[in-house]
Amino acid sequence: MDKQILLNHGSGGKLMREMIHDIFLAEFNNEILSAGTDSAILNMPSEHIAFTTDSFVIDPIFFPGGDIGKLAICGTVNDLAVSGAEAKYLTCSLILEEGFAFNDLQKIIKSMAEAAQEAGVKVVTGDTKVVNRGKCDKIFINTSGIGILDIKYKEISFGTGIIPGDKIIVSGTLGDHGMAVLKAREDIKINADMVSDCAPLNGMIKKILDADCNIKFMRDATRGGLATVLNELVEDGKYGISVEEDAIPVNENVRGMCEIFGFDPLYVANEGKIVIIASANSADTVINTLRNNKYGKNAAIIGEVTEDQKGKVILETSIGGKRVIDMLAGEQLPRIC
Amino acid sequence: MDKQILLNHGSGGKLMREMIHDIFLAEFNNEILSAGTDSAILNMPSEHIAFTTDSFVIDPIFFPGGDIGKLAICGTVNDLAVSGAEAKYLTCSLILEEGFAFNDLQKIIKSMAEAAQEAGVKVVTGDTKVVNRGKCDKIFINTSGIGILDIKYKEISFGTGIIPGDKIIVSGTLGDHGMAVLKAREDIKINADMVSDCAPLNGMIKKILDADCNIKFMRDATRGGLATVLNELVEDGKYGISVEEDAIPVNENVRGMCEIFGFDPLYVANEGKIVIIASANSADTVINTLRNNKYGKNAAIIGEVTEDQKGKVILETSIGGKRVIDMLAGEQLPRIC
Repeated sequence: MDKQILLNHGSGGKLMREMIHDIFLAEFNNEILSAGTDSAILNMPSEHIAFTTDSFVIDPIFFPGGDIGKLAICGTVNDLAVSGAEAKYLTCSLILEEGFAFNDLQKIIKSMAEAAQEAGVKVVTGDTKVVNRGKCDKIFINTSGIGILDIKYKEISFGTGIIPGDKIIVSGTLGDHGMAVLKAREDIKINADMVSDCAPLNGMIKKILDADCNIKFMRDATRGGLATVLNELVEDGKYGISVEEDAIPVNENVRGMCEIFGFDPLYVANEGKIVIIASANSADTVINTLRNNKYGKNAAIIGEVTEDQKGKVILETSIGGKRVIDMLAGEQLPRIC
Repeated sequence: MDKQILLNHGSGGKLMREMIHDIFLAEFNNEILSAGTDSAILNMPSEHIAFTTDSFVIDPIFFPGGDIGKLAICGTVNDLAVSGAEAKYLTCSLILEEGFAFNDLQKIIKSMAEAAQEAGVKVVTGDTKVVNRGKCDKIFINTSGIGILDIKYKEISFGTGIIPGDKIIVSGTLGDHGMAVLKAREDIKINADMVSDCAPLNGMIKKILDADCNIKFMRDATRGGLATVLNELVEDGKYGISVEEDAIPVNENVRGMCEIFGFDPLYVANEGKIVIIASANSADTVINTLRNNKYGKNAAIIGEVTEDQKGKVILETSIGGKRVIDMLAGEQLPRIC
């Protein structure tokens, strides 16, 4: 029988220490983690830092384009990057179900290490708990992260500089992650590729910031999709947002699957797409910079911030109509991240 | 029927935002969290920081002396404090089971807020996921934390300054948390008080550091208990450790329950006790400082670092014998934290 996770792997004793040594230290492989201190001790010569956390409970844990491990690294790296911060250090806290396949854990940690490598971040501290069979679903991962924030980017998180006329940009096609995960979860027999966009975007975001564009706001469009990001922006009622349906990039396969299952791609989760608000005169530079990156090839200006329709997100439809894009009321897809 | 957690509470949509507003922002109540940014933006003018993470899966979630929320704050605060760092900012990431009682969530968050208040830390960012009924057990909480580390305390995490003759100190009775949780979980009818020692120890630890003692090492004796902390210290084989059974403080009720159920209090989890190694000439000052604090009334010097028996922890028993205290091989009590 293949090796499985036992309750002992969470006891703080010998078996746990073996697992830490054989898997975590081997894969994450950095001196800070290997020091084995209770807290990671970090040199952070910075006035400001960004600090974020996310727990990942995605089902299935392996899906086309990634797995729960890659997702856990990318999600937290992207949260830091859209805040204008340089992602530096991550934690990795696991909740494992007794009986979980050791091989799968190894694959997931390897995948985390690879994503961390690509993102240029280090996993510096962690924790592992094991719960009895049936008390969690295979594996849940929390990653928290810190990044160094250059004070000149401090406003980006808050979007305080947004004014009417600013352009709304998305870095690529929407809905890929959500539909890929749904297809994998339900084992849907559609003869069409559906691959999650899960990716670390900090490299691409750095290029945009370095291009000296006037970036007013960035956010990754995860749970709740583009619609949720835009609705959060307008909720103070200082301005409206208008987007053009025809300008929003959506893969044909994703659009087709959304139509079949009754999803709106504007609400479907992404794990490798950002929404950017930039000044009108910076928008072209942003688009060009994005399109020069492998994760931004389908970047598009999809709309703008408006003086009228304050507090509302308005979609100008393909057929010339207008409709309000509201905040998601119900659940679209549970356990999508 | 009482209000319950729905899958929608994890969707990123309206219901989730209501919950964030009504519970998390209301209880944690600080400007950084209320800013609603993806990452918390923190002013951290410090050369060095400590960074830690812990997931809490304790069963039952309410127990005498605390609950999973208080535990999640104290555990992470204590991890930072034993590193010599001043705990500053925490995250709160929840995994909730569909159907979990809203009232219980409110109680737990309130308890987190109270513990954070006592510890003088702020919960500055968070995340909430909801999984389908039966896919987790009520509630799991991850807290990650950062603290400012004065460089003069940098060695404390590593214990690099430990030499033979240094004294081993515990801040109070051992095993209270483990036995209190076991009693509550199994609903054991023993007519004896059993209360978890779960507490934020950063205030007491600051007092010790401020007393200008020569502290070589600190660690909180959680999962795996005192025995695990001491075994980790000797594993490099540079020195041995000798402790006296009679000097180790254990509450009578805890000792009795350990005997009945076959546990060794040296391996049982604590959530409000630290192990300190201090130079011989500092030990009395450390003890006096601890005993002046409500969480350190039963502090005791229990042994010392030895030149001989390198790599081993030796217990001098009450009856005059000696035995090796080894690393925990099997699981004592799953889901104790």
